[in-house]
Amino acid sequence: MNTKIQPKTSIVIFGATGDLAKRKLYPSIFNLYKKGQLAENFAVVGVARRPWSNETLRDTVKASLEHEPNRDVVEQFCQHFYYLSFEVTNKSTYHELKTLLDEVETIHKIPGNRIFYMSMAPEFFGTIAKNLKAEGVTDSGGWTRLVIEKPFGHDLESARALNQEIRQAFSEEEIYRIDHYLGKEMVQNIEVIRFANAIFEPLWNNKYISNIQITSSETLGVEERGGYYDTSGALRDMVQNHMLQMVSLLAMDPPIRLTPDEIRSEKIKVLRAIRPITEQDTSRYFVRGQYGPGVLNESEVPGYRSENNVNPHSKTETFVAGKILIDSHRWAGVPFYIRTGKRMLLKSTEIVIEFKGMPMNLYYSENQTQSNLLIIHVQPDEGLTLFLNGKKVGPAGGTTPVQLDYCNNCVDTTNTPEAYERLIYDCMLGDATNFTHWDEVELSWSFIDSISKAWEKSDKDLHFYESGSMGPDASMELLEKDGHQWWPITSESKEEEKRSRSNESFRY
Amino acid sequence: MNTKIQPKTSIVIFGATGDLAKRKLYPSIFNLYKKGQLAENFAVVGVARRPWSNETLRDTVKASLEHEPNRDVVEQFCQHFYYLSFEVTNKSTYHELKTLLDEVETIHKIPGNRIFYMSMAPEFFGTIAKNLKAEGVTDSGGWTRLVIEKPFGHDLESARALNQEIRQAFSEEEIYRIDHYLGKEMVQNIEVIRFANAIFEPLWNNKYISNIQITSSETLGVEERGGYYDTSGALRDMVQNHMLQMVSLLAMDPPIRLTPDEIRSEKIKVLRAIRPITEQDTSRYFVRGQYGPGVLNESEVPGYRSENNVNPHSKTETFVAGKILIDSHRWAGVPFYIRTGKRMLLKSTEIVIEFKGMPMNLYYSENQTQSNLLIIHVQPDEGLTLFLNGKKVGPAGGTTPVQLDYCNNCVDTTNTPEAYERLIYDCMLGDATNFTHWDEVELSWSFIDSISKAWEKSDKDLHFYESGSMGPDASMELLEKDGHQWWPITSESKEEEKRSRSNESFRY
Repeated sequence: MNTKIQPKTSIVIFGATGDLAKRKLYPSIFNLYKKGQLAENFAVVGVARRPWSNETLRDTVKASLEHEPNRDVVEQFCQHFYYLSFEVTNKSTYHELKTLLDEVETIHKIPGNRIFYMSMAPEFFGTIAKNLKAEGVTDSGGWTRLVIEKPFGHDLESARALNQEIRQAFSEEEIYRIDHYLGKEMVQNIEVIRFANAIFEPLWNNKYISNIQITSSETLGVEERGGYYDTSGALRDMVQNHMLQMVSLLAMDPPIRLTPDEIRSEKIKVLRAIRPITEQDTSRYFVRGQYGPGVLNESEVPGYRSENNVNPHSKTETFVAGKILIDSHRWAGVPFYIRTGKRMLLKSTEIVIEFKGMPMNLYYSENQTQSNLLIIHVQPDEGLTLFLNGKKVGPAGGTTPVQLDYCNNCVDTTNTPEAYERLIYDCMLGDATNFTHWDEVELSWSFIDSISKAWEKSDKDLHFYESGSMGPDASMELLEKDGHQWWPITSESKEEEKRSRSNESFRY
Repeated sequence: MNTKIQPKTSIVIFGATGDLAKRKLYPSIFNLYKKGQLAENFAVVGVARRPWSNETLRDTVKASLEHEPNRDVVEQFCQHFYYLSFEVTNKSTYHELKTLLDEVETIHKIPGNRIFYMSMAPEFFGTIAKNLKAEGVTDSGGWTRLVIEKPFGHDLESARALNQEIRQAFSEEEIYRIDHYLGKEMVQNIEVIRFANAIFEPLWNNKYISNIQITSSETLGVEERGGYYDTSGALRDMVQNHMLQMVSLLAMDPPIRLTPDEIRSEKIKVLRAIRPITEQDTSRYFVRGQYGPGVLNESEVPGYRSENNVNPHSKTETFVAGKILIDSHRWAGVPFYIRTGKRMLLKSTEIVIEFKGMPMNLYYSENQTQSNLLIIHVQPDEGLTLFLNGKKVGPAGGTTPVQLDYCNNCVDTTNTPEAYERLIYDCMLGDATNFTHWDEVELSWSFIDSISKAWEKSDKDLHFYESGSMGPDASMELLEKDGHQWWPITSESKEEEKRSRSNESFRY
């Protein structure tokens, strides 16, 4: 991507008073501005229900940038912000929006390029998109693009309905479905690691890989999102999008070139090759859990059913572990294990590629060697670890695991863009590589739907797990019955190391 | 190796007053004693020409252990040392030796196991061995072993003559030819890295490896060894033994089991597969150099021809670079480049395995990716580095080399045995894995001889290099004509980094 291009665009943010806008969007746009990736020819039109003024919005933006020491730049930046109080279903507000956009585009010399950013309750996405078109807001003389936050539907049917609505106003090429995992440095690195290193491609198949494990664990509970989450759950909130996206990046064949179309075409091939799970088979392949009370960071935390806006008899899953099989020549027989959950021991997203053992192990008789592991640390640590077996230091011989490390965020990272910063800039440039295409959404919902249908029918296999654990035992058993195990995620081993060290110092 | 075994043995050191004995042998035997790998049932009989007493030897041993804080253990240790003034050709001294050994073996309850350690001028090796047998010193009631330091001959003919002499007194199984590189932790690790990691064996061949580079550089000049060195040179002193041993460990096929015989059999296969170099071809495959004056560590150092005991018109090489081809199914077409020299920029032994590039490089158009490199740091750093290509941090994309590191001697290494300690213990246990078999000596001399013969005929291709450099330009050209380059050795890059950092700080 050429970071020298300074796109000229206005950005209409629906949900300008919301949490995502304050936490992520304003700081990200500001960073682009500060780094010079955005010139003066931009404007942000904040749109929401509340009766704010331009000044209220500008004060909100300033507050979201409170850590920026250069207040002059902040001041200058805020002059590009405008606010419009908005009624989703009221046609006249769309006319007001059109008029306002025409005005600010004149002021800031913007050639009619418009990004419509949907950062609000998903039930309005369709209506807004249709009205934008119907009331002529998309007739701007420049390009128009629609950015949509998750969730994109609740199941295949609702996703199809939503897609039909927005497709009345925007073409597929104009729609940018955000999956912010695709904006993460190390998720983008998967492609580079795989296709810019000659040593990996020959090993990247069922001949040498035993299994792949993807963990995305959070320590937070549902916090303020209880109402939404209780109707969604971890399967829809995390697996349908982020987890399946990581699976397809890890599993795809090398694209013939690095264009969005070619990469997408390979990712879609993976999604098409995933073996569907029938309702009857669900419990053999997928495990769901819900957090009970527990202790996290030395504080007691309540169970899920006691959270705000959560049904006290809720059977919504806050944890999912699954075994995904890809029926392709490359991956036949290699399970992709995924797990994600809330209120787990640690916050971490990590990918473990476990290689098969030696065909004949010369060292077996003396020492059980550990499998070679390539670990991609996505967050909070960013980096790579390769676990090999080395000679045990000293005359006794034998082998011992040795760890080769690369840390991606240990050096100066002040210039590393956040996921949102990167994705917003991508959208301005019209680069859809790191956004989700409709075909991907459709295939992943279709995979997910049969699992959620099975789960809706009965709650007998809902496993409870203690807050602060790594999930229910059933998740461990899912791998154990294949002869595998979840490798401890890195920070987990660090924690254990700390614990064992403090135990040691206790003992002596 | 079982470090719990406490071998009961006497060790006769020929050359007990010499440098190697003081610097390496006494401290190594002491370490074995201190760690409990040697019990009280051992004795060392020091033998040399000088008219020392037991006390002189014990004082010398004490002095060589001056850094040991526990003086009681040193005192105790020294009670196992005895001295005999010795005439190599005088039969009666062999009788004295036999009598002394019988005595000390009674005192220390040693069942007649005797190691004869040749740590002196090589011209006496044969005579001593023959006399040990003829005068009955080897009739001990226990086992007897002969340890021989390099050089083992000066060429194939003299090595054969020496071997015939010692074989009159000792069988091949009783002869332990020391190559102290084989005692180094990371040289022993080569085998483990290759055969205990499933990901390397599939890559370890001419389909994925472009070339292998072995550098062993010293900053020292010939020091006190001018007399010997001037008749030997780097080819005989380093290439015939250490460098070819490393080549065969890197190139061998996986042995069917990890026994000395099976490993040796695979190493010998490599030596047999090395393409012989004819006299006519020598200059195409091998480069020799001799150091001139220069600056090292900010001091001026003299050229080789001005060193003590060196012929002022000497054409002895102090540097060798060579290209070795192994005509096997696995290695056809993969050059093994070696280089070794004195008075070079840095002291370092390092192996670089350079992998081939991507068959089709998706990132080629934007960024030239660097080859994947696996680096084995033998000394002074011990460890592994894997160079991969990662995503350049930030939105601009592209690739950048990333470095995964493992350091073997960064943790507590107080218990890491020195090469000699390990090898002496191996010999006591009768484990010949890390010693050189006659077949290996014979094959490597046969390879070396045609090169040295070509060099003896003419000195027109003797290249001079500045002390403190990485050798003559001809060494770089040797690789350049194949489209390769010497990768900077790690400490070299660290030096450069330091330099460039200080330049940067200068610029700002």
